[in-house]
Order: sequence, then structure tokens, then C-alpha cells
Amino acid sequence: MRNIKLTIAYDGTKFHGFQVQPQLRTVQGVLQDMIESVVGHPVSIIGSGRTDAGVHARGQVVNFKTTSRVPLEKWPIVCNVKLPNDLVVQASEEVPDDWHARFNATGKVYRYVIDRGAYPDVFTRHFSYHYPYPLRIEPMVEAARLLEGRHDFTSFCAAATPVEDKVRLLHAVELIEQDHLLVITCRGEGFLYNMVRIIVGTLLDVGRGKIAPDEIPEILKACDRTRAGLTAPAHGLTMWEVLYEG
Amino acid sequence: MRNIKLTIAYDGTKFHGFQVQPQLRTVQGVLQDMIESVVGHPVSIIGSGRTDAGVHARGQVVNFKTTSRVPLEKWPIVCNVKLPNDLVVQASEEVPDDWHARFNATGKVYRYVIDRGAYPDVFTRHFSYHYPYPLRIEPMVEAARLLEGRHDFTSFCAAATPVEDKVRLLHAVELIEQDHLLVITCRGEGFLYNMVRIIVGTLLDVGRGKIAPDEIPEILKACDRTRAGLTAPAHGLTMWEVLYEG
Repeated sequence: MRNIKLTIAYDGTKFHGFQVQPQLRTVQGVLQDMIESVVGHPVSIIGSGRTDAGVHARGQVVNFKTTSRVPLEKWPIVCNVKLPNDLVVQASEEVPDDWHARFNATGKVYRYVIDRGAYPDVFTRHFSYHYPYPLRIEPMVEAARLLEGRHDFTSFCAAATPVEDKVRLLHAVELIEQDHLLVITCRGEGFLYNMVRIIVGTLLDVGRGKIAPDEIPEILKACDRTRAGLTAPAHGLTMWEVLYEG
Repeated sequence: MRNIKLTIAYDGTKFHGFQVQPQLRTVQGVLQDMIESVVGHPVSIIGSGRTDAGVHARGQVVNFKTTSRVPLEKWPIVCNVKLPNDLVVQASEEVPDDWHARFNATGKVYRYVIDRGAYPDVFTRHFSYHYPYPLRIEPMVEAARLLEGRHDFTSFCAAATPVEDKVRLLHAVELIEQDHLLVITCRGEGFLYNMVRIIVGTLLDVGRGKIAPDEIPEILKACDRTRAGLTAPAHGLTMWEVLYEG
């Protein structure tokens, strides 16, 4: 069996998230049906991680095993011919038999886009959260710095998550202003459920003066989801890149 | 009567162009219905110019006359509440009674985006033309320079156009590479029907070596539509800005 790694991009607007669900259009479901129709045998698609309904991906990574002899460089072409326009295979690679899109990932980069224009930008409306209210950026940058590092992120994780160990290493939370867009990039070893969206919701509370930057350490320490801000909407979030060693 | 100027943006994907057509969803039609429902009397929407089916606008300008006393600063809010997500009023202004969105325009800026990635970019797919073939940019820049200035643009105008005078002043044709995107910006006093799309189609022919830059003066001189390149697809084009004096 060959082990094939694909890098995929999708516009999450019309997907019910990554993970297969009966009767619903999901990324994993569409991808699996397409690949099975190419290779002629059942395949199991492993993703680097799930994305929620409405969340996009520029560089999601998946792998699957197949007996197919489709030449490596042909995979994107063969796949893209059969895929809908909102899901694109960007690259393919053959990886060792024990390589696993999730277990081998050493980090992830997410990007959240806030549209600060007075009225929504029609061109980015599917990929950004329109927030036309005043924001002070400097305190947001200060709060972002205080979130970086290795912390127990229980306060920044959807309350119902079954994961026990909520300590994660967050390498960087960067804010960049591009015209009317505010782009928040989070780079870390791993992320808890809704973690980036709760970080963004909390930074928005900081930007509008509801939370002071120096409250961030207390909020982390509290290990209490109710202390952090709201979960920012899914459609502003994009899984930007999955990092692997070597 | 007050004369109201609105700056609007639209995603042209689901509009049958700007101009009203019976039974079809058009920008002018949707805008007119909305404004009539606000002001309670018939209005006539004047646009700075038409855009074809599939063409977008970031800064299209329209004006209309009304007896409504809606305060000026409220127009975008009042309109946007009633408009669909792919059409947004960005700004409003009260203008003198004889001000006319088309006649008063002194220039226009159009932007055409070419996606040069190997596979389509899902995030820009509605606003860019995917062209994954090799292109030499330098000759394209050279050809662009030769199109600038005051010329008879008959060769760069849809053949069936009834306009008699096809001399136009083209201030600038600029090419900028942004990662995998090639952005072509055309700024001029006025444009003929399909002119920007034919310029782009011709520059693509230059980029792939089918037309040499020094053929541009001959193509202009020929005043023959068949001498220039194909008309590039509508969905890569955005009416970027309409220029007015003062």
C-alpha cells in the first residue's frame, strides 16, 4: 500500500465541517467519495485535525493508503477534475507507511480575519467577521503577548471538551492590520476545541475595553471557560498551515 | 428634490450585470427596488457606467433624486439593512442638483486579477481568473506601457459597439505580482465596451509569447478587433473606483 499525503484548501461556507457525518456535506465525506472513485477501493481519510462547520482551510493536510498506481504528481490533477470548486487539492506527496497526518503534526497555524470596515466588504465577507465597532489595537497586542507560551488553556476551550490535558504551547499570537482588515495569526503546537475562536473573542473584549490586558494571566489561571470572551464566529477562521518536522 | 450619491460595492457572481433587465437579478434593479421601498416613490438610478454579468465593483457610483428626508449619514445603514449580502452601500453624499454619476465622472479605475497558482485558489476563485500556464511578466509590462496614452482603441473594443468615437486616454496599465496573483490595474478617462478585458486577454497573449510587445502599436493602428487577444473572463474584473473632480 502507498501512503499518500495531500494538502487541501477549502471554502468552508457550504461544508458541515471536516468530519464525516451521515447525510451532510462534509470535507472528509466529499474527499473520500472522490478518492474512492479514483482508486476503486474503500479508503480511510485521516485529517491533521477537524475544522468546524463554516471554518476554512488553506493548508489542511490529510493522508490515506491506497494500492492505486496513479503517479504522484498526477494526484492533484486527477482529484481536482472530480472535486467541486470549493475544495481543491494543492499538493501531493508520498510518505512513509507509518506517517499520520494528525500524529506527525508538530504544530498548526490558524488565521482569523476581522473586517473593521463601517459596512461589510463583499469580497471577504465569507472569510472574515464583520466587526465595525471601535477597537484599540495596542491593548489587544499586549493581551496577545500574555497568551503566548505554555499554559493550561481550559478557560479558552469549549466547556464540553472531553480532552483531559489542556496544557498547550502557543508559540505566537500576531495581529497585523491590512487596510480595514485585522488579521490575527495563532501559531502553536496544538489547539483545543474552539481555542482560536475564544482567543479572538477575548482579544475583541480587550480591544473594546471590557477586559484589561493584565487580566489575561488571571483568566488563564482560573481554568474557567466563563472568564474568557465569547467564541468568535466560525467563518472568520482559516486553518492556514499544518507543520511537520523535516 | 435632493440628489443623493451612493458608492456601492458588489460581488457580481450572482447578478446579470448592472443594468436593469426584466425578470433578471441586476444591480440596478435590486438597488432601485430597495431605494423605492425606503423613500416611498419611484426613483431612477443613474450609474457611472454599466458592468457586465459576472463583473464586480468595489467603488461603483450611482445617484438618484428623492424627496425623502432620510439624514445623509443614515443612507448606508438604511440601505444595507434591506440589501442582500452581495451588494453593499459603502458611502453616501448629497450632491448638487445637476450632478450626474456618469457625465461628471472624469475617470475610472479597473482591476483585473489573474490567479497563477497551479490549482485554483478557493478564496479568490470568484474574483480572479485562474490561468496556471507559464507567463513572462517583463514583456507584459512592456506591452502595457505601449497601451498607455491617447489612442483609438477600436482593436480593444467589442466589435458590435455602436459608439463612434473610440479614442480614449488610458493613463496607466500597471502589473503587480502578489504571491500567486497577478493584478492588472487600468486607469483611464473612459473605457470602451470590454476594453479592459480585451487588454488583459492581449497581455496574456504577450505573456505566453503569442504576441510581441512591439506589435502593440500595429494592433492599435489596425483598428481591427480581430488583431487583439481574446476577451478575458468577466469574473476576474472589478470596477475599482470612479474618479470625480474636486
